[in-house]
Amino acid sequence: MEIYKKNKILNSFSNDQKLIHQSKHLLLELYRCDCEKINDESFLRCILNRAAKLANATVLNLISNKFEPQGVTAIALLAESHISIHTWPESNYSAVDIFTCGQNMLPKLASQYLIEALKAEEYSLRVIERNPPEGVLEQIRTVV
Amino acid sequence: MEIYKKNKILNSFSNDQKLIHQSKHLLLELYRCDCEKINDESFLRCILNRAAKLANATVLNLISNKFEPQGVTAIALLAESHISIHTWPESNYSAVDIFTCGQNMLPKLASQYLIEALKAEEYSLRVIERNPPEGVLEQIRTVV
Repeated sequence: MEIYKKNKILNSFSNDQKLIHQSKHLLLELYRCDCEKINDESFLRCILNRAAKLANATVLNLISNKFEPQGVTAIALLAESHISIHTWPESNYSAVDIFTCGQNMLPKLASQYLIEALKAEEYSLRVIERNPPEGVLEQIRTVV
Repeated sequence: MEIYKKNKILNSFSNDQKLIHQSKHLLLELYRCDCEKINDESFLRCILNRAAKLANATVLNLISNKFEPQGVTAIALLAESHISIHTWPESNYSAVDIFTCGQNMLPKLASQYLIEALKAEEYSLRVIERNPPEGVLEQIRTVV
């Protein structure tokens, strides 16, 4: 698995951030994060909301849990699937997943934002295509 | 991506269901599910709880959302990461992810259970190793 240094982030994202994504699951490992930020539950909730907006997604619910002596999990339920973050401040590590299923989603913008917000000095990003049956992405559904 | 028929499920799981898993992210596509079951929010919450228990995980919170005219998302926040399910009953399709990070996790048992509970006639399962820094899996933390 290739690990990227932070100074490669902008180049790696600049070429495709305007593409239309449909059903992608991004698995993001963030290394050498700021340990105070990734232990701050309120901050993590805030950046998850912001990341969702950057991805063109709608947050319907957001839950989180603080562990002892440290560590946080925060998960946003989106109209278009979900974003989660699990953190281990003692190892400066965060595991993120961003699953977006819909039109005009920009999950890579969300991942770019999270890398920067958590001051990760290294990261690895895997973009996995989910495989819905034909037609799922065109179906219209609304929030109740 | 290989698609499995349901009658291959038991064989495919029987060899490794007793192994100790550490930091795995399972992406499970369920096709030809029972459309009533995957549109039943209460049922989905119930089976997510059961799946977590089978994986040896502890559910700390569980949220869900029903869409109109159909479709459900349910997400369980675990002490050991998360399980989510997103359903499209009109296409008999469900997208599941099971992320477990810890000792003695059995996420494949959870996926086996979900395949059967939703009566998926076909599925595909991808098991992705997450890459925490050394030491993360040995760290002890508790729920507050």
